[in-house]
Amino acid sequence: MEHAGIILNIMKSRRSLSHVDRKGRARMVDVGRKRPTLREAVARSRVDLSKEAFDLVRRNRADKGDVLAVAQLAGIQAAKRTSEMIPLCHPIPLDVVEVHLDLDATACAVLIEARARTRAPTGVEMEAMAAATVAGLTVYDMVKAVDRRAVVGAIRLIEKRGGRSGRFRR
Amino acid sequence: MEHAGIILNIMKSRRSLSHVDRKGRARMVDVGRKRPTLREAVARSRVDLSKEAFDLVRRNRADKGDVLAVAQLAGIQAAKRTSEMIPLCHPIPLDVVEVHLDLDATACAVLIEARARTRAPTGVEMEAMAAATVAGLTVYDMVKAVDRRAVVGAIRLIEKRGGRSGRFRR
Amino acid sequence: MEHAGIILNIMKSRRSLSHVDRKGRARMVDVGRKRPTLREAVARSRVDLSKEAFDLVRRNRADKGDVLAVAQLAGIQAAKRTSEMIPLCHPIPLDVVEVHLDLDATACAVLIEARARTRAPTGVEMEAMAAATVAGLTVYDMVKAVDRRAVVGAIRLIEKRGGRSGRFRR
Amino acid sequence: MEHAGIILNIMKSRRSLSHVDRKGRARMVDVGRKRPTLREAVARSRVDLSKEAFDLVRRNRADKGDVLAVAQLAGIQAAKRTSEMIPLCHPIPLDVVEVHLDLDATACAVLIEARARTRAPTGVEMEAMAAATVAGLTVYDMVKAVDRRAVVGAIRLIEKRGGRSGRFRR
Amino acid sequence: MEHAGIILNIMKSRRSLSHVDRKGRARMVDVGRKRPTLREAVARSRVDLSKEAFDLVRRNRADKGDVLAVAQLAGIQAAKRTSEMIPLCHPIPLDVVEVHLDLDATACAVLIEARARTRAPTGVEMEAMAAATVAGLTVYDMVKAVDRRAVVGAIRLIEKRGGRSGRFRR
Amino acid sequence: MEHAGIILNIMKSRRSLSHVDRKGRARMVDVGRKRPTLREAVARSRVDLSKEAFDLVRRNRADKGDVLAVAQLAGIQAAKRTSEMIPLCHPIPLDVVEVHLDLDATACAVLIEARARTRAPTGVEMEAMAAATVAGLTVYDMVKAVDRRAVVGAIRLIEKRGGRSGRFRR
Repeated sequence: MEHAGIILNIMKSRRSLSHVDRKGRARMVDVGRKRPTLREAVARSRVDLSKEAFDLVRRNRADKGDVLAVAQLAGIQAAKRTSEMIPLCHPIPLDVVEVHLDLDATACAVLIEARARTRAPTGVEMEAMAAATVAGLTVYDMVKAVDRRAVVGAIRLIEKRGGRSGRFRR
Repeated sequence: MEHAGIILNIMKSRRSLSHVDRKGRARMVDVGRKRPTLREAVARSRVDLSKEAFDLVRRNRADKGDVLAVAQLAGIQAAKRTSEMIPLCHPIPLDVVEVHLDLDATACAVLIEARARTRAPTGVEMEAMAAATVAGLTVYDMVKAVDRRAVVGAIRLIEKRGGRSGRFRR
Repeated sequence: MEHAGIILNIMKSRRSLSHVDRKGRARMVDVGRKRPTLREAVARSRVDLSKEAFDLVRRNRADKGDVLAVAQLAGIQAAKRTSEMIPLCHPIPLDVVEVHLDLDATACAVLIEARARTRAPTGVEMEAMAAATVAGLTVYDMVKAVDRRAVVGAIRLIEKRGGRSGRFRR
Repeated sequence: MEHAGIILNIMKSRRSLSHVDRKGRARMVDVGRKRPTLREAVARSRVDLSKEAFDLVRRNRADKGDVLAVAQLAGIQAAKRTSEMIPLCHPIPLDVVEVHLDLDATACAVLIEARARTRAPTGVEMEAMAAATVAGLTVYDMVKAVDRRAVVGAIRLIEKRGGRSGRFRR
Repeated sequence: MEHAGIILNIMKSRRSLSHVDRKGRARMVDVGRKRPTLREAVARSRVDLSKEAFDLVRRNRADKGDVLAVAQLAGIQAAKRTSEMIPLCHPIPLDVVEVHLDLDATACAVLIEARARTRAPTGVEMEAMAAATVAGLTVYDMVKAVDRRAVVGAIRLIEKRGGRSGRFRR
Repeated sequence: MEHAGIILNIMKSRRSLSHVDRKGRARMVDVGRKRPTLREAVARSRVDLSKEAFDLVRRNRADKGDVLAVAQLAGIQAAKRTSEMIPLCHPIPLDVVEVHLDLDATACAVLIEARARTRAPTGVEMEAMAAATVAGLTVYDMVKAVDRRAVVGAIRLIEKRGGRSGRFRR
């Protein structure tokens, strides 16, 4: 058991950041040997609001207003431009981007989930992360006059399918 | 005193989201009556990493590698394009954008602070928020092969100066 | 009177396209001698739909769906990027962009009006035109699976204020 | 016959906008089950000018000036960025974009035709429409100092080939 | 005299790169204390061609074709987006961008000159440099099927006016 | 032999610019009959500096500063947006973009090499050229306060593989 631990540590110590070369310099990962396969990623984020700001967003949704629609659209558009936003990301086609926003009244939070799918030689984690993030920032933009203390956070990968590294489920 | 509280509540209840009209439809805020003044905003975010990923980032910094430099630059560039990312944001000139990344070894976290300054008729909160956010996402992009569970979060406004609403300090 | 007419004709014959030089080559207009003043422009467009497509859009609006909201937002965003879309346009700041969409049941048409305001040394006609146009194209995008024959048209300047050429009202 | 009509109406009533879900919320169409095939689309638009403006454009063309060349190029470039302009459009590769501008002296109009081709899982109608539109707006930009009343219009799909829905010819 | 030289050397040794801080990290220059003044910059570049490629470009110009027009337009458009291309550049408004291309038959070269003017708190050297460069790259793009060995080069600042550092003339 | 020369001349005289039609008008090349194959291109450029500026860049590198890292990143990002910069370029996916910067102390020059790879129906020469160019411009931006006379140049294709025209090696 102990040996296994040591070997694991050695293996781990060989792991390195994919986006830096041996000298520590940044690089784009070469996906030239990867085949285009179906890939999917799901990311989530949240915006924690004051009671007042949350109530305004909730009332806007009850009135079928646009606040959540604007944030959703901003998320979709951001996913399409991920490779401009993240310097070492590959530009890839996208089959679909879905962004959903829900309200959690107990926590006074907007909960965001973004899903991206592609058939490409590299994954769509960053596209899903970008969509969840920009949707959250857009909510902040619209509530900030009322609640400067709102916090966008918990941006994380929930699920990932396809590609060499296989399935990931948080 | 109690009366003051009641009046305050009534005033508050009249508050509304600046980016929606009376029908709840989205709109851009008209800054036509605002004068260009010096405005500054500071935002922060963080990326929480596994011990392994954190050590790789720390070693990269010790080797004067590029990981933090790439994230810093991505943050600066994002601030310049905030009005493309956030649908109802105004395009504004920027005097400077500063992005700093620090390592918190106790928490295994990358701590990010972004500062934006302008002389414009509207504030730069979103520019600072965008810079702090995209710097964080870029860190995630570079560590994700090692640590898919890294979380970008706590994106929040720390300070704001200039403009009609005056100074804000978290 | 007749003389005045002749002189007017001579003057007119000297008029030339502002965006081409004497050799007919394209050029950007130099606004270096113009002062920043308040300028406003209003443009309109329309999308003519089949009865079926119009009813779907109308029902979507009755259900407080997103079709018109998406088109409105696309128009606002396009105005902000007009100088990227139109090669010889100047990049300018914008105080506000407003886009409204109405339904004309008699004509089975979506009527679009866009308004842009700035304090800049050059006008915002193209920003208003771009907003009205892209809002219309976005409506087309969303109905095209149902009505390929929909027509986006009648994109025209309605009003213009500010600047050397003074007020224009169609 | 009457029954067929009723059934057709029922079928039609089940038709819905592809870009909205059951709740009327906007969404990107999922093209994940579509295969990349050759797809082509042709769109047209026109710019109606005053006699004076038309003559200036015609003289510029006779002098082999740049007005039509600038508009043509703007159309090609717009097609390449359609997915940035239209919020729910997919980013797709393009085999070619062609934009032609002709002068109709009888109508004092610039007639524009744009053609786009791709091998992708979704069609290029919006790319052709965007090219025809932006070429027209660019003509307006260059004549507007002489003819503010010029109208860009009649933006419509002329032909479409490839994909599940087959051929369309106006 | 010798003392003056020593002092000059000491002064020089204190000079440092404006875009890096004391630790050598990249930064955007803070222009917050600079006032908006008229600033102008002129840059040049050239494309050296084979005899065959040069003759094709010359014939195209003689036929009043579009090759030089496309390159000129690409240069103007690039200047407007300089702050997206160059990471630490400030986004600034532009009064005008002019790009001229001439043919040097003796050298078989396309000679390019770009001029940019602004009223801003920072200069337009990079805008002029970007315009001259992208115009040159665009010429290369159009001749490369005939002359892969064409060279874009000699991109340099020719003149600069306005701002604290005063006039520069190469 | 003489005949061969004449025939070669006739053949050559039939060669024409791929981006212009018979009338000399600009056009995008139709790549619809080309198959996606592995394609690679390498381009180089250089920035010639004064002794003082070169020493500052060298010291920055010795201190493991960011100057070269910023330029490298700018080059990678430019390659991804080549089709926006060069009007008649096709948007294509990229497997990888690599940019390397070296210092030539004898010549006081920064030497830049960029490599791009794709699996697409058209080549990546322009992507490699754009990366080498923008990396050079970015170096200029960072040294210009110290050395306005720095020259970016010698931008040229070094190698090209894949596609119908086969291998090219300068």
